[in-house]
Amino acid sequence: MSAPRPEAAAPAIDFYFDFASPYGYLASVEIDAIAGRHGYAVTWRPFMLGAVFKLEGPRPLVDYPLKGAYTRRDVVRCARRLGIPFQLPEGFPRALLAPARAFYWLSDRDPALAKHYARAAYAAYFGAGRDISRPEAAAPLGPAVGVAAATLLAAIQEPAIKERLKQETDAAIGRGGFGSPFLFVGGEPFWGADRLGEVDRWLASGGW
Amino acid sequence: MSAPRPEAAAPAIDFYFDFASPYGYLASVEIDAIAGRHGYAVTWRPFMLGAVFKLEGPRPLVDYPLKGAYTRRDVVRCARRLGIPFQLPEGFPRALLAPARAFYWLSDRDPALAKHYARAAYAAYFGAGRDISRPEAAAPLGPAVGVAAATLLAAIQEPAIKERLKQETDAAIGRGGFGSPFLFVGGEPFWGADRLGEVDRWLASGGW
Repeated sequence: MSAPRPEAAAPAIDFYFDFASPYGYLASVEIDAIAGRHGYAVTWRPFMLGAVFKLEGPRPLVDYPLKGAYTRRDVVRCARRLGIPFQLPEGFPRALLAPARAFYWLSDRDPALAKHYARAAYAAYFGAGRDISRPEAAAPLGPAVGVAAATLLAAIQEPAIKERLKQETDAAIGRGGFGSPFLFVGGEPFWGADRLGEVDRWLASGGW
Repeated sequence: MSAPRPEAAAPAIDFYFDFASPYGYLASVEIDAIAGRHGYAVTWRPFMLGAVFKLEGPRPLVDYPLKGAYTRRDVVRCARRLGIPFQLPEGFPRALLAPARAFYWLSDRDPALAKHYARAAYAAYFGAGRDISRPEAAAPLGPAVGVAAATLLAAIQEPAIKERLKQETDAAIGRGGFGSPFLFVGGEPFWGADRLGEVDRWLASGGW
């Protein structure tokens, strides 16, 4: 599981997202294909938007009366365009620490495996609308990527992994990331699932 | 000036924007061409985002530490891609009531003229970075569209025109508009300059 990764040779885009973010889900289904077309790899980096809310003051999108109503409609429309399933999960919005912690534990062992886990987590949460916020709900996604649920449950509760997620969140914020998805192409920041087309053009042209 | 407009025959997109919004400026240079390709006209409708801020609680984008820094960079990058001049105006962000009032006074006489005025106002404000917030600064843009500055200055101060802008703002909010630009294609809402490509596809396909 710790063999050298082919990705290590390619320039990498940092893809910051929160598992609780529907726009992160939308971006997750497209970003690797877009980057791959231009010879870029993508490093997935879940982080916690809650830390941004504390800093910047806003609330989750859906908590605003007008913006919330729009967002609930928009994410469904975007998913329909992409041809992917979408449902707002039970209890949404809710902080999704457990899958983010599981992700980093897996990532330290095999980044590709962690990405598979992230896709499975998003598919469960926004594809099937299943609440995966509790460790006991995030761990059973392990077997789908070859890791026993009990192993992942223990991993999620490791203090080092909890600290790791905090550090990744601080790093995202330190680089200016405040939303999900938030992409860095080199030093160039792009915010929002609706900017993937712009990222595509940026990678194709080397910037403008 | 009140002759029937060719636009009246075409289905119309409502383009809500605030003159103080840089993303409104970005959208303003593209929206008519995009709509026109699909046989749509565009009805421009300035409104006051300040009323949304009172309702929803957020502040202007640039007042958030992280989001503000990103926005200041992003609008410059977007303008560069579009090949249009851009500078953040002196005193930005500031409420731009005067040009919005001038717009509606002109629009009641000739919507096409009002659109020319809006383009001139955006070019002055975000293209040249010139503060046009005061009536005495918004009125001198009149002669560029054939209206004397003194006439426009008097118009901006008419109680009926002030009331008109309030009503348009209430109507935008009543329809769920909370940002700039905010577009309605029939009942379908689209928020943000970064959604113009999606609007283009929506018009081409009749929705999805």
